[in-house]
Amino acid sequence: MRMAVTMGDASGIGPEIVLRCYSGKELKDDFVLYGDSSILRKGADLLGLNVDIHPISSPANAKPGRLNIVEFDRLTAKDLTPGQANPKAAAAAMEYVIRATKDALNGEVAGLVTLPMNKEATRTADPSFVGHTELIASICGIKNFSMMLTTPEVAVSHVSTHVSLEKAIRLVEPNRIVNVIELTNEALRKFVKRPRIAVCGLNPHAGESGIFGDEDQTMIIPAVITAKGRNIDVSGPHPADTVFFQAIHNDRYDAIVCMYHDQGHAPMKLFAFQTGVNVTIGLPIIRTSVDHGTAYDIAWQGKAFTQSLGHALQYAWKLTGRT
Amino acid sequence: MRMAVTMGDASGIGPEIVLRCYSGKELKDDFVLYGDSSILRKGADLLGLNVDIHPISSPANAKPGRLNIVEFDRLTAKDLTPGQANPKAAAAAMEYVIRATKDALNGEVAGLVTLPMNKEATRTADPSFVGHTELIASICGIKNFSMMLTTPEVAVSHVSTHVSLEKAIRLVEPNRIVNVIELTNEALRKFVKRPRIAVCGLNPHAGESGIFGDEDQTMIIPAVITAKGRNIDVSGPHPADTVFFQAIHNDRYDAIVCMYHDQGHAPMKLFAFQTGVNVTIGLPIIRTSVDHGTAYDIAWQGKAFTQSLGHALQYAWKLTGRT
Repeated sequence: MRMAVTMGDASGIGPEIVLRCYSGKELKDDFVLYGDSSILRKGADLLGLNVDIHPISSPANAKPGRLNIVEFDRLTAKDLTPGQANPKAAAAAMEYVIRATKDALNGEVAGLVTLPMNKEATRTADPSFVGHTELIASICGIKNFSMMLTTPEVAVSHVSTHVSLEKAIRLVEPNRIVNVIELTNEALRKFVKRPRIAVCGLNPHAGESGIFGDEDQTMIIPAVITAKGRNIDVSGPHPADTVFFQAIHNDRYDAIVCMYHDQGHAPMKLFAFQTGVNVTIGLPIIRTSVDHGTAYDIAWQGKAFTQSLGHALQYAWKLTGRT
Repeated sequence: MRMAVTMGDASGIGPEIVLRCYSGKELKDDFVLYGDSSILRKGADLLGLNVDIHPISSPANAKPGRLNIVEFDRLTAKDLTPGQANPKAAAAAMEYVIRATKDALNGEVAGLVTLPMNKEATRTADPSFVGHTELIASICGIKNFSMMLTTPEVAVSHVSTHVSLEKAIRLVEPNRIVNVIELTNEALRKFVKRPRIAVCGLNPHAGESGIFGDEDQTMIIPAVITAKGRNIDVSGPHPADTVFFQAIHNDRYDAIVCMYHDQGHAPMKLFAFQTGVNVTIGLPIIRTSVDHGTAYDIAWQGKAFTQSLGHALQYAWKLTGRT
């Protein structure tokens, strides 16, 4: 079985990355693309790449040695508008994701690797669109999911992400923390027998015994105790300014549970900018995503970093337990 | 003129680091130590190092080719109690700092590089002790100072440090931010003609136009506008998860002003663990410090990283404008 890769918004860097990775032999022959072949053909011309593009009707028809694309026929060559928000392209990108998710649920693909959609463009096409991950989760019928930022060295999950820092502090409470510890543990157990999970403190120096705020003691310690009681190898709260070094350079931990967006994202994106992989945890299917957006400003110019897609595919296979 | 290096708490890793750096020729012959020679002699024996230690009464008497130490005669060999908090050693460490600060104010040394004191041990000796930096600032008669974490690539200053995250949010207000931007700019102007300063947002994605919290717009933007009006090359708010990469790997900025402790410390300590240098900005004298504590658990075992002292000395000279 192959992994599904969704092409993403045609106005952004997604399809270009697939073409450049494929022609540069950066990817194994273990995926099938979901998208529009007219965009790929026009794009290959634009970039001067010679790619053997084969439209198919279902992932089962994929064959080795060519770029297999589950064809949607929603766009034509003139819908390739590099860097220009295009509601038609944005709406098509939603369709790729919807079908790939359903195919993953039906066991027709091993999982789902997504290239970026553009939130603003998609909202123009469909005002009810909340986000890429939310769309996938709703098709799966799941509300309890979370985002994990990964590199080969460490996985970083978050108790909250896209909320104000003030609200993030209010979301630091034992049930939420235990939930994210459990989701992280379940995800990593696919390839680590007993994941070692470090939980970050909320305050500087993890509160230094309550001198700088009390949430580390009143909220995080009880969560760590509960998770330990559920036979998880978890410790903390650890100060955020040492735990990343300990995990990445001293191999002390497999995962870090962060209390808010920037606590995890600021160190991880410095350490692994554009090579990181996003993983949605808590879904019944495997879903990874590249660690960048549509980058309209550089789309179809041959400039975009291409490495993240290969990492995202590799990590998706890792999550299947295939070594 | 030489730079003063204070030996720090004799029970910790400070004096050991000086001895090992000196005998390993990691340091230039451009400093004078403030401390107790009895500790150094006993320590050199303990570590099996052959170091030419010369006690002097004042920094003016330093001579090339030997380890010059402004002698305090407060401790004897038996006060060397590795890894054991020792109020006598802690009190002596305060004296080194007090005199070195005064000598810097009087122009007898070019500035001050400090090795770690231990807060708990010092409080046993002097319950009124608040902190190493606060001690230096009070001798200088300065209340408006701040802490900057530096590497050769970038300097990171903070609007607040050792307070709870909840309090840190309340401290994000225009006057404080402008003040830290100005202190940062003044410090860097010693060696950069027109420092390029990036200001971090408080919320994820710097609030994404107010969707995740409004402080980025109500507090940070006005501060940036005010600082620009004072002819500072400043921009922001920038998302914390991209600005470090832009500064360090793309050389876009010389300094980053962070809104709270972990926002700066988490990425910086991952990037430059134990090689970073702390700089106190806002003082009338130059003061840098190694980026680690007394580390009692490994003191006098020959294990401690030694690199930070060399970096701290080098940065202190950089701040004199000497190239």
